[in-house]
Amino acid sequence: MARLLIAGDRLGIRIKATRRAYAQRDLDYILKTAGAEIHAGAEYLNVNVGAFDEDADTMRWAVEHIQRAYDDVPLLINSENAAVIEAGLQVYRRTRSKPVINSADAGARADFINIAADYNAKIICQCQKQEVPISDTERVAYCSDMLERGMALGINPNDMYFDAVTMPIKENQERQLAVLQAITQITKLGLRTVCGVTTVSVGLPREVKPVMESAFTLMAMQNGLSAAILNPCSPRLMQNIFAGEAILNHVLFSQQAFIKLSQEPE
Amino acid sequence: MARLLIAGDRLGIRIKATRRAYAQRDLDYILKTAGAEIHAGAEYLNVNVGAFDEDADTMRWAVEHIQRAYDDVPLLINSENAAVIEAGLQVYRRTRSKPVINSADAGARADFINIAADYNAKIICQCQKQEVPISDTERVAYCSDMLERGMALGINPNDMYFDAVTMPIKENQERQLAVLQAITQITKLGLRTVCGVTTVSVGLPREVKPVMESAFTLMAMQNGLSAAILNPCSPRLMQNIFAGEAILNHVLFSQQAFIKLSQEPE
Repeated sequence: MARLLIAGDRLGIRIKATRRAYAQRDLDYILKTAGAEIHAGAEYLNVNVGAFDEDADTMRWAVEHIQRAYDDVPLLINSENAAVIEAGLQVYRRTRSKPVINSADAGARADFINIAADYNAKIICQCQKQEVPISDTERVAYCSDMLERGMALGINPNDMYFDAVTMPIKENQERQLAVLQAITQITKLGLRTVCGVTTVSVGLPREVKPVMESAFTLMAMQNGLSAAILNPCSPRLMQNIFAGEAILNHVLFSQQAFIKLSQEPE
Repeated sequence: MARLLIAGDRLGIRIKATRRAYAQRDLDYILKTAGAEIHAGAEYLNVNVGAFDEDADTMRWAVEHIQRAYDDVPLLINSENAAVIEAGLQVYRRTRSKPVINSADAGARADFINIAADYNAKIICQCQKQEVPISDTERVAYCSDMLERGMALGINPNDMYFDAVTMPIKENQERQLAVLQAITQITKLGLRTVCGVTTVSVGLPREVKPVMESAFTLMAMQNGLSAAILNPCSPRLMQNIFAGEAILNHVLFSQQAFIKLSQEPE
């Protein structure tokens, strides 16, 4: 197993200030946020501008400007609208990295896998169809569907990240284990996994969020999680993940690295 | 799998102030520490007064006074000296709980298992012989030896807690996974496990300790860990454990319970 890849989630419209910044074309906010995420340890940035057709313009604007400022950080082109995804892919400069489509699923968004093949992009595949699955076996079945489709289209399985579909613990406490078990099973199949960690703590108070996200992420890491989309600007979350990486022997523990993670973002 | 049992480690002589308190018969310190551990969430208290023959008196003194103040909290009678263990067992009042011997091993302290049988005590069995084992299979082999001895003496396997033998990450980073895997394997055998969590962070700076201990404990919990000996007076560690219990669906997540864990001990 390898070190967890971290994608920053601060450039998604679920965050009110980010939504406003996209609407107002507030480049200063977008670049500062990107910079803070990268400084805090994000290796990928998730860019989610919305799912309306007119958001395609915003996606083009965001991808062009973020890449101009940070050309070595790959972006997750995130939308539920194929037109918005394609707008991002069309302007994506590939000198340093492939774009990552976020995300296909096994239902209405299955053809996003075709887009990945057409554009030679990596792709996140959410292991669900219409609703969030109940069981781990359901998730693995959807994973298998999407893998088959991807391979038939010539996509390298290493370019596919299977999203185990997290849920808020607030209303789905008894269903967290199924997510963790799906990660174990998909990992055992030799495939790569990803999780939207921030979803786990939706609706929880601010001080509880990084604690709950850490507990989930550490368990998922032990099960083989390849990548996580999360808030890298939470020192507490990042410290806990770093400690987990040391326990799993993925990184050498060093005091200096820990201290760096302890700094609040500027 | 059940909720993690938590034994407070603050009444062990590894802590300088505790060592001094035993030497000076400082009852006020001992009872305040016990009270703080219980208030913070410890359900058991580990009492380690030393391993010299003359420490038997201290063990009697400690057990009698702690039980007088907190008669519903079971104690771990911890020593490497059988005479000190027996001194504790002889004065132990069993109206509310059985004592727990901490600990036998598969080598020189194997006959502590006989003491457990003689005194009808629970027992922690360290899965090691002379040195800390390298591999998980070695740990499981020692576990099996001690289980056999205990069962031959009529001990109920549920009264035996198998200690997977933690090591400081500082000098044993590549050996942490073996401990975690041993917990998985011993759990799969239907047996109960325990870990000395504090050992993992020996030699690390104060601010790193609870982070590293949390990462280890959360992974161990996912593997089935039954009980942990740790510092319950660390809010950060206890919060992380509580979040892990919620993810594993062992306890119902409640905001009030979380807030209680967030308070620094008095």
